Amino acid sequence: MLTNLPARVTITEVGPRDGLQNEPAPVPAVAKIAFINALADAGLTQIEATSFVHPKAIPQLADAEEVCRGLPSRAGVTYSALAPNLRGYDRAAACGVRRVAVFTAASETFARRNINMSIAESLSAFEPVLRAARGDGVSVRGYVSTCFDCPYEGAVDRRRVLEVVRALLDLGVDEVAISDTIGTAAPTDVVATVGYVLQHVPRERIALHFHDTCGTGLANVVAGLELGVTRFDASAGGLGGCPYAPGAAGNLATEDLVYLLERMNISTGVDLRKLVAAARGIHEAIGGGFPSRQMRRLEAGRGT
Amino acid sequence: MLTNLPARVTITEVGPRDGLQNEPAPVPAVAKIAFINALADAGLTQIEATSFVHPKAIPQLADAEEVCRGLPSRAGVTYSALAPNLRGYDRAAACGVRRVAVFTAASETFARRNINMSIAESLSAFEPVLRAARGDGVSVRGYVSTCFDCPYEGAVDRRRVLEVVRALLDLGVDEVAISDTIGTAAPTDVVATVGYVLQHVPRERIALHFHDTCGTGLANVVAGLELGVTRFDASAGGLGGCPYAPGAAGNLATEDLVYLLERMNISTGVDLRKLVAAARGIHEAIGGGFPSRQMRRLEAGRGT
Repeated sequence: MLTNLPARVTITEVGPRDGLQNEPAPVPAVAKIAFINALADAGLTQIEATSFVHPKAIPQLADAEEVCRGLPSRAGVTYSALAPNLRGYDRAAACGVRRVAVFTAASETFARRNINMSIAESLSAFEPVLRAARGDGVSVRGYVSTCFDCPYEGAVDRRRVLEVVRALLDLGVDEVAISDTIGTAAPTDVVATVGYVLQHVPRERIALHFHDTCGTGLANVVAGLELGVTRFDASAGGLGGCPYAPGAAGNLATEDLVYLLERMNISTGVDLRKLVAAARGIHEAIGGGFPSRQMRRLEAGRGT
Repeated sequence: MLTNLPARVTITEVGPRDGLQNEPAPVPAVAKIAFINALADAGLTQIEATSFVHPKAIPQLADAEEVCRGLPSRAGVTYSALAPNLRGYDRAAACGVRRVAVFTAASETFARRNINMSIAESLSAFEPVLRAARGDGVSVRGYVSTCFDCPYEGAVDRRRVLEVVRALLDLGVDEVAISDTIGTAAPTDVVATVGYVLQHVPRERIALHFHDTCGTGLANVVAGLELGVTRFDASAGGLGGCPYAPGAAGNLATEDLVYLLERMNISTGVDLRKLVAAARGIHEAIGGGFPSRQMRRLEAGRGT
């Protein structure tokens, strides 16, 4: 066991979007830009900066244009943004965004409550986005929420997960993030569902997006690594959750993920101390929140 | 992977001792007894109730006699107590304690700072304890601290861990808890060190004691399960740490462990809601602390 681990993992940092979209009070664009710059300084190369949803749906991200326009171009760093429909895509593209993300679910009820569409309708809505992106040379990531449990429907059938993953790949997304939206999965679930998907889909196309609601986030990452997955999402400072998912509390903290991977001799390219500094900065900007473990540990001068 | 999991795991609950010994203000004995009773009500069968160290060393546990005498005898429940030397053992035995624990380390510097003895001296000090226990029919557990990293010496040689584990078993302890005292280990470390020990020692004699300082606690449990270990320590509410171990912050929360195991179809015999109620009770008695994940989740009515 653990004998065939990858040498390197790519982390997609989702804190600026998935984290800050849940903050009760909007964070100023300048603080978001500082946060994203600090994340890039720490070595993160894939950073989901914001979402081009309708400003009324998520007022916390109504400054999407300002944030994207304020980000400096950096070699090796890709900023992405959610673009739920063509209108959102056009706004993103107008700001020079070169990678967008689309968002659906493996559970019908969750899709309807989260994005106000059926899964089939969401896939149809993505078609013009994918077409436009292809024309512009913009890459597209797809999220599939509630791949393990749905807060409304309970356990989700892995065949349904595979269907939605395949549909997204067929549409032309280059990577699908299989998401444990409410953070209830255990490693056995990862083996059952992700292992099944990987029997039909190349592992290079799959990222795993865990929430740490039940403390199983890193255990699930290890299960993913053993399955050959090398792409994981996380949120600096453990920010975030999902406003439409009761019980979802906190993305897997990027600091915890980086600690685990580096300790296992898997390279992330991320400087843990700089990452903790970035997390501290945004915690101060949002006026608190639970510090992550590495924030408590490294800020107490106890890191080794 | 994860195909050969045990059907059942035994949890040793260490919150009343390892948790409460670190609280700044002593907790009244009556609150400790209520906590232990609530833990037994939740289904925990192995509960480390207190420590018979010198009251000046850990004033928080100076009421060891009162606590032990206040615990009702319950079928299937074993209360244990630390007995670092013959004097402590005699105090424990006088209260009717039927299971004691001795405490050493795999790192010399940590042993000297934590128990003020070399490892060899500690093993010698245990001899009369083991002899008396054998005579009384009292069972003895052994702890080995700092089996992965030492806060003073850094990485600990797994051969040293095996030596100390073997020495304890040779002395007559029935179970050795291999402890990640500062909570820095990752699953690869568990495989390297515990896997090595298990090449030489029956797995039935080994328990694993993880701290969750870096969020790797459950991932390490899964690695232990895959190695065939079926005994794990945890602390209700995630209480505790180690006053002599800089950077140690919080035992693995029993709630997190129970959630993981039950989700993986491994029976613990523990009722998660009752366990969270027990954790809430002691949190109120100590006046706060960080709630564990399951405390936040289940108390918000979000458990499934």
